[in-house]
Order: sequence, then C-alpha cells, then structure tokens
Amino acid sequence: MGMTDYTRHLSTRSRTSRESAIRRTGDIAASRADVVSLAPGFPDPDSFPWDEVRDIAASLLTGGDRSALQYGPTRGYPPLLAGLAEIMADRGIRGGTSATVTTGSQQALDLCARVFIDPGDVVLLERPSYTGGITAFGNAQARLVCVQQDSEGPSVAHLDEALTRERAAGRRIAFLYVIPNFQNPTGMLTTLARRHELLAWSSSRDVLIVEDDPYGALYFDDVATAAETRPIMADDQDGRVVYLSSFSKTVAPGLRVAWIGAAPALISKFEVAKQTADLCSSSLDQRIVYEIWKRGIFTKRLPLIRQCYRERRTIMEQAVCSEFGASVTWIEPKGGFFLWVTLPEGIDTDALLPRAVDHGVLYVPGSAFHVDSCDPRTARLAFSAVSHQEIRTGIGRLASAVREELDAGPSAVSAMMAGSSSAARSSSAGSKGSSRAPGSAGG
Amino acid sequence: MGMTDYTRHLSTRSRTSRESAIRRTGDIAASRADVVSLAPGFPDPDSFPWDEVRDIAASLLTGGDRSALQYGPTRGYPPLLAGLAEIMADRGIRGGTSATVTTGSQQALDLCARVFIDPGDVVLLERPSYTGGITAFGNAQARLVCVQQDSEGPSVAHLDEALTRERAAGRRIAFLYVIPNFQNPTGMLTTLARRHELLAWSSSRDVLIVEDDPYGALYFDDVATAAETRPIMADDQDGRVVYLSSFSKTVAPGLRVAWIGAAPALISKFEVAKQTADLCSSSLDQRIVYEIWKRGIFTKRLPLIRQCYRERRTIMEQAVCSEFGASVTWIEPKGGFFLWVTLPEGIDTDALLPRAVDHGVLYVPGSAFHVDSCDPRTARLAFSAVSHQEIRTGIGRLASAVREELDAGPSAVSAMMAGSSSAARSSSAGSKGSSRAPGSAGG
Repeated sequence: MGMTDYTRHLSTRSRTSRESAIRRTGDIAASRADVVSLAPGFPDPDSFPWDEVRDIAASLLTGGDRSALQYGPTRGYPPLLAGLAEIMADRGIRGGTSATVTTGSQQALDLCARVFIDPGDVVLLERPSYTGGITAFGNAQARLVCVQQDSEGPSVAHLDEALTRERAAGRRIAFLYVIPNFQNPTGMLTTLARRHELLAWSSSRDVLIVEDDPYGALYFDDVATAAETRPIMADDQDGRVVYLSSFSKTVAPGLRVAWIGAAPALISKFEVAKQTADLCSSSLDQRIVYEIWKRGIFTKRLPLIRQCYRERRTIMEQAVCSEFGASVTWIEPKGGFFLWVTLPEGIDTDALLPRAVDHGVLYVPGSAFHVDSCDPRTARLAFSAVSHQEIRTGIGRLASAVREELDAGPSAVSAMMAGSSSAARSSSAGSKGSSRAPGSAGG
Repeated sequence: MGMTDYTRHLSTRSRTSRESAIRRTGDIAASRADVVSLAPGFPDPDSFPWDEVRDIAASLLTGGDRSALQYGPTRGYPPLLAGLAEIMADRGIRGGTSATVTTGSQQALDLCARVFIDPGDVVLLERPSYTGGITAFGNAQARLVCVQQDSEGPSVAHLDEALTRERAAGRRIAFLYVIPNFQNPTGMLTTLARRHELLAWSSSRDVLIVEDDPYGALYFDDVATAAETRPIMADDQDGRVVYLSSFSKTVAPGLRVAWIGAAPALISKFEVAKQTADLCSSSLDQRIVYEIWKRGIFTKRLPLIRQCYRERRTIMEQAVCSEFGASVTWIEPKGGFFLWVTLPEGIDTDALLPRAVDHGVLYVPGSAFHVDSCDPRTARLAFSAVSHQEIRTGIGRLASAVREELDAGPSAVSAMMAGSSSAARSSSAGSKGSSRAPGSAGG
C-alpha cells in the first residue's frame, strides 16, 4: 500500500492513545506454549457453567423467540434489566436505581468517560488502579490524579488534598473511581467505615463516585464476609454513585454482559452514549446470562467459585512463601483474583520481564497500574486462571528468574548493594515512589 | 434520590449528544402491539439460520474449546480474522488488507470517530446519510458537511467545493463517509464509474474514505449484479479506504459481529481504540459466525436472502403505487432494505408521525437522516422485517393517514393550497431544501 504514515489523518486521541500493558503481555504468552501466565485476570474456564449454557442456548435457539438473534433495545434485554434490579437489591442497593447493560465492564468505563469527561477534567483514582480504567479515562484526555491507599482503602485526607489542589488550579473533577471489593491490582478490601467516609466526603465536596465492583461476590470466607462487600452505592441517598458490575467473573467473560446501575437521569445519558458506541449488546449473550440467573444457577454456583479461588490464593501464598521466604511481601487478598507482591530490593519488574519469560513465567509489572512513579519491585500475580500445579511451577520459575537477575546484578541498586544477592534477603528500606499500601505481609 | 440535575457533572459531549431518531421510533412501536413498523432497518428473523446456529452452539459449548466463553484477543477470534480476509478477497479487496472484528458496525463507526476525529474536524457525508454515522461522528463533535447525491452517487463537484471551502476556513477533513451499496436511507447504488472518480478525487485531495458496506451482498438480481457492488476499496492502491462490513444483515444482528478492513497501520490504531471501548467482542458470537461461514452456510443462504428482500421490495413498490398513484415518488432500490419515498406536497413526515401511529403504522421521517434542512415530504420505509401482508397493511394505513392529514390541512402549505387535498394529486414544484436524488419514480 502506498500510504504508510497516517499521522496527519489521526485524531489527537489516537496519536497519543495508551495501549493496555496487560493485553501486551497476552501476545507474549500466546507466543510460547509452555509459559505459565500469571498475567491476565481471566476467570477459570472450569468455573464456567458449560452444560447449563449449552442447554440454555439450545432452548433459546429453537426460533420460538424471534428476537433472540435480532437487534435489541440499547439499554438491554428487559427481563435481564429486571433481574439486575434484583441482583442489586440483594447487594443492598435501594430501589429506584436504574440500569443499562454494557458490553463488558470495559464499555461501562468507556461510557463513564464519554458521559463525564471533557479533555483536561480530573479523574481521581486509587494508586495503583485498574489498567482498563486508566486507559479509558486517560484516552478520553482526563488528567489522572492518583491517591494513596492505606490499609482501609483510599485515604480521604489525600483525596481532599488532591481535590482542593486541582480545583484551585481551575480544573473540574469528573469523578472519583474506586474498586472497593478486592481491588485490581492490589486485592484490597476497602473497609465499611472508609466507604462511609468516602461517601460523606463525596457529598460534601459534590463529587460523583464511579464504583467498580466486578469481584464483590468472590470473597474468601476464611477472611471476609458478604457484609464487608456492601457497595458504597447501598448507602447513597443522593444518586451520587455510579455502580458498575459484571458477569464476567461469575458466569463467563466471553459472554460480554456487564451493567451500570445509577439514577434514572444518568442512565438516560449512558443509554444515549451506548447507542453511539454499539447500538446494543449481544442478544444471545444477554439471554444466556439472564437464564443462568433466572434458573438459580448463578446464585447456586457462587459458593463453589469462591472456594475455587480461595484455594488458589492459598496455594499461591504458600508457593511464594516457600520460594521467597521473607524477601517478598504482599497484601493479603480477601477475595478476587490477585496477589500484589513486592519483590526483593534490586528488582525492577519491568526489566525482569524478559528474563521471566525466558524462565517460562509471565506477570504484570506494577508500572501497568500507575500513571506516575511506582515501586519498581511490585507486580500483580493472578491466581485465577491457573491450576494449583501451574501456580507452584510459575512461582518457582519466578523465583529462579529473580535469583538470576539479582546474581547478574544488572540494576544500579543491586550493584550498589554488592554481594547482597540472596533471594532470601529481606528488603530493608522502602524504595522511592512506593505506592504500596501497608497490607499484611505473607510468610 | 437527592440529585436530579446532573448538568454540571456531564461532559460537553453528553450534554449535547444527539439520540438516534430511529431508536426513538422503536419505543413507539413497542407501546402498540398492532402497529406495523416500517421504521427499523431490521433483517427478517426468518432469514436467520436458526437450526444451524443451534447446532453450532451445541458443538461449541461442549467445553472442548475452553476459550469459547473466555476473554479473547481484542482484534478478534483468529480463525474469523482469516475468514474475513477471504470474504474481502471474494469482494475484490486486495491481500495485505488487515482486519479487526467490531461489536456491530456501530462500533466500527465509533472507532472511526475515535481514531480520526478531533472536535471541529470535518466529516464529509452523503445527503441524506445513515443516522448511526451521523450520531457517531456528530457526538465526537465533528462538523458534518453533507454533499448532494445525483443519480450516480455523491457528486464529486460538490464534494470538492465543500472540501475547498472547509480547508480554506482552516478546518481539517477527517474523512469522507459513504455507503455505496444500497445506501441507508435512499437504497441508492453508486455507479462503478462514480466510485473510481471518488477514489481518484480522494487521492488527489489526500482524503481518507470510510466505506460502509452492510448491504453489498443483498443486491436484487432483476436490477443489479454482484459486479456493480464492487467496493471502492477493491481499487484502492494507497491504503486510503477504511472498509466496514457486517454479518448483521446476512447472518443475524443479535450476534454482534462486524468488522473493519484497512491497512495494517490503521488496524493497529483501531485495535487500541477497541481495547478501550470493550476489550473484545463476544467470544461465542464470533465463533458462531465463523462456523456459519466456515461450513458454507453463509454463502449458500445468500441467494435465498436476496430473493426474500427482492420480493418484499416488489410488494412494497406495488402497494405504494396502488395506494398513492403518481402522488408519491421514490428511488428504485437495487438492493438492501429501504424505499426512500417522497410523499405528496403538503405533508411533513415529522408532523405526520403521530397520525400515522394512530393509524397503526410507523416509518422514519427524512429529517432523521439529515443534519440540515431537508425535504419534509421524505421518509424511509423499511420492507426488510415485515411480511407481504404487513407491507400491504402498513402502506394502506400510511395512505389513510396521509389522506386524513391533507384533508385536515394542518400544515401551512396545504392550507395555502386550499382544496388540493386529494391523495392522488401529483406534487408539483420541489420543496425548499430538497436533498433527494433524482432517482426513478415508481408507478
């Protein structure tokens, strides 16, 4: 083809768009069959209700319901919308909340960007935060302002400081983006007390909250309870919270069905934005998910799914502990898919990645979840889509890669600390730019 | 809920977003069970391969392929991408074109907006044009500049005039958006000669072309041939054309599977934009469509589908002719879903709509396909999703509504032309702002 440089034809947004770092690691994983990938936050395909989906698809596709393969309403399949109201009510969310189906939660994040963000507006978010949010808001040319988390969740004092500073500079705050339940990437559970403080603060400062809750149903019942996952929105009297949730982690993500719950006046805005985005989500996917819920399969399977991920978490914690000893710390996840680890001093998880791939293991470096500086030792390890044996193998390989990296001593830090290259060495002082919350240390 | 006015929290885009007029008529149709809706451009559910989709779903959902319900690559299911290359090659499009799957063609339009449009950039488009394009580009804050069509397609002279004027005013041209095959809403087929002229013009003026082709396979073989549907992209040597197509009209739209074909350097940009938009399209939908194509069902069914719509076109033309006589004109559709009619002088199709609904028929007023003034007598009548009997009933009801409207004489024009309220009256002079191409008159 004649043209190779399209630069002058591209939008500013497209010229500057940031690609998802996690998706990039997917390409690496696909190129090596034997790699153990602890990178993607994929659910376990064994947790998908295969037989039930097959039965449901067979009954939906008889042609009895001629609308099953037709365009549907932008807001979603009406029986599913009614179901979502019940699911939200089960989570404590008041009646009067309206909903729209979205093509996965990524679309929900993107619709939030469309509906709330003008270029230069500020989005407040946790530090670290989910890459999908960072790209959706960042690509809409928001100014991303990340706020430190402490052991209870995002710090209200820091939030208020950031808000005051940004408003003083004449900037509009689009919203605060939080993932209170088993945050991606840290696995942190924001305490109920902190949720109340966040809501009171948002009300006093007139800020909207976008509450992203894909993992709430996946608490580990040895360390957490359903009550602790109560959404912030459940106590919202003002219609100030926009609630996002999804069936990707509890049914199957290949069925692209998630939703936004919000005040009716906002849902109308999301609906118009979704018309432009994709007219409607898959009619078949929506009906399958609806039937999974309607037939009680959704609720019935949750305890099994929780147990599955709880066991994997235990296996991963044990493996990290036995391979690394005290040299690696992490936040104890109380649910969800992830272990957020801090590797030994001298490791830069971006620089380590090629060596890790050589050793046959993949993870997501901490930098992917930051928009500014971050502790270079951090990484997200997903235990959700790997077997117990793969977890052990993967962590073993990671440990080998780390040992080799420290022995090779390529980094300035480890060169400075000559001789201190044992993998079992405990890290001493915190490194610059650490964004880690002081969570429980494993091992 | 406490907050009712979210205005200060909304983006400029959301405050000013334009809703799809067609989607609005859907709400009216849903509120009356007995209404005959000639409004939505839905395909006929009887044309969907129900049995085949059911069989395919059953074999996909055995759990043998663990990825069938998992997240997939953003660009799409790799075997489907290979299939798209073959489908495009069958349409004359050269090798070396790359593709990305999209969640329906609406997402493709939206990705074009993201990748090419900065606020204030110009999009050139046909007059009238598809509402989904108008909303996608308009909501991205493009300046929409519509260009007259003549009997061969969009006028190159008018295009060049518009381009020169807009560039002289310092504006950037994002792209030209065209629907050469059985345009929505006019049903027009751009001639091959005009396609060559458009391509040569776009090259000389360094403009990209977004070629939207959902209907190309649906030519009516009594008045058109496959050769006449050859995409503009087939003759593109420069990578200047971005080609959009879809399975919505040829398989089923509830499976949200469409695609963009373009030079690899552009597809990378679309892929990054799609990551932000929804990560990936439905894994199940993509696999079903792929199997439909792979098993030869797609190709085998096309002649039947063409015949179905050809017959409906004939029925609708006959009904319009017998109900309205010479008082209504239209462009003879050579394929696709629509009859673009001009109703008798004195009718304003926006004003007529409530009366039409009272009579039990729905259509889309011509204004929905315009961004500026338009001939108020125009309307789009879809024959795609209604039976022969419904077509006859619907056109009969439309004729009654038109007669009643003219008798009531509510519009300024018919009041002025007192007494001339016969439905069989032939319209005389063209009304102001007419955007209609001089197509063949029916009857």
